[in-house]
Amino acid sequence: MGALHEGHGRLIGEARRDTECVVVSIFVNPIQFNQPEDYALYPRTLETDAAFCDARGVDLIFAPSAEEMYPWAQTTFVDVTLLTDGLCGKYRPGHFRGVATVVLKLLNIVQPHRAYFGEKDAQQLAVIRRMVQDLMLPVSIVAIPTVREPDGLAMSSRNARLNAEERRSAAVLYAALRHVEDRVRGGATGAAGLRREALDIFAREPGVRLEYFEIVDPGELQPVQQISGPVLAATAAWVGGTRLIDNITCLPAA
Amino acid sequence: MGALHEGHGRLIGEARRDTECVVVSIFVNPIQFNQPEDYALYPRTLETDAAFCDARGVDLIFAPSAEEMYPWAQTTFVDVTLLTDGLCGKYRPGHFRGVATVVLKLLNIVQPHRAYFGEKDAQQLAVIRRMVQDLMLPVSIVAIPTVREPDGLAMSSRNARLNAEERRSAAVLYAALRHVEDRVRGGATGAAGLRREALDIFAREPGVRLEYFEIVDPGELQPVQQISGPVLAATAAWVGGTRLIDNITCLPAA
Repeated sequence: MGALHEGHGRLIGEARRDTECVVVSIFVNPIQFNQPEDYALYPRTLETDAAFCDARGVDLIFAPSAEEMYPWAQTTFVDVTLLTDGLCGKYRPGHFRGVATVVLKLLNIVQPHRAYFGEKDAQQLAVIRRMVQDLMLPVSIVAIPTVREPDGLAMSSRNARLNAEERRSAAVLYAALRHVEDRVRGGATGAAGLRREALDIFAREPGVRLEYFEIVDPGELQPVQQISGPVLAATAAWVGGTRLIDNITCLPAA
Repeated sequence: MGALHEGHGRLIGEARRDTECVVVSIFVNPIQFNQPEDYALYPRTLETDAAFCDARGVDLIFAPSAEEMYPWAQTTFVDVTLLTDGLCGKYRPGHFRGVATVVLKLLNIVQPHRAYFGEKDAQQLAVIRRMVQDLMLPVSIVAIPTVREPDGLAMSSRNARLNAEERRSAAVLYAALRHVEDRVRGGATGAAGLRREALDIFAREPGVRLEYFEIVDPGELQPVQQISGPVLAATAAWVGGTRLIDNITCLPAA
């Protein structure tokens, strides 16, 4: 969706290493926004983005207009069920339908052999992986780790909206996730208790309104009670008027 | 779905003329049946079908098992909205979701340049055309006219289930459609009146239970009141325990 940062830079870098021709799609997709003001406010910085891509050896930028992607009222939609019931899916009805639909369109237009997605959007990544498997699409999905600021905040185009105080508070998402990761590595197995500990950490930042903090299985994103293998800890929170998400895959001690 | 007849033969013949390599997919798709007994009863004649294809110069038959097409519980579905509200969509909830989903999977697997569909399944054809446009799929959809028996009955794998008396009664679908086509060509413009005339024709065959007879626009399949251009007359009826469908595109006098 543009407003490129070092998280995107890493996707481009990996693609540049792996493949002959690197295409970056830049499209702020209207059908995945629940709130018109979020769509209107989403940063659009095509000129800077183009320079960013240029500097990293991108071969082609595909930056269609909304009218080119939706020349008539879209009537066909892709629904990935089950995986979209919880986490962000619960709070953003229709969001993943919009994401899956536009990603399928972009894949059909660009027809890449490999497509690179960031792990920061863990539910999106799981949804796209499942869509590709279920629809037997001829593309490999490559997941790229989240790039973080020095205090751990995951890079996001939305971070630019935070004022200084909000920016400081925003570090609580990563702090809570890291706490849970450490506890799981240390042998903790009860998800309910870990979730309460994470909520306590959030409670220390009254400027941050937690939307969810969940511990789920990494494949189908269903809630886990007893941790006996890798789990995904995922959270969404409002910092002022900005909604941020983050996640960590937690591995129990071997 | 196999049980190949001369309607399919015409699809193959056109593809054979147009293209270098002809692939026939034969797959009775479980997720498009509303009634388990219809799925169970659907004819499966792979050996005869293979000979049929051989005789017509088909290069490849793709006949996967249900386990190959659905190796795990399918969670991704394609919904074509609006066009599926009426006609068969009203009576077969989930049917077109199952059709769109399997056709997209088959297209992704086979990756044809052109795909051939029969006009007999008019709503299916419209749904697939719209899906291809909406999802920007790299394939051309080719529509092939319905092949009919001497009394006008549209060829269908389901016709084999009719007994002699049912087979005779089944001609009423085409008779009613032809009546409407003639009246439109003759200048009739009121769809409600034409629909009543068609219903009167059906009433003469008490062994046939009409499900619907509708006059709709051929693109989005929405009901038409005043006929001023091409319209689709479409019908579904039960003849004994067998559900038959048929349609004609009606052109007003120039």
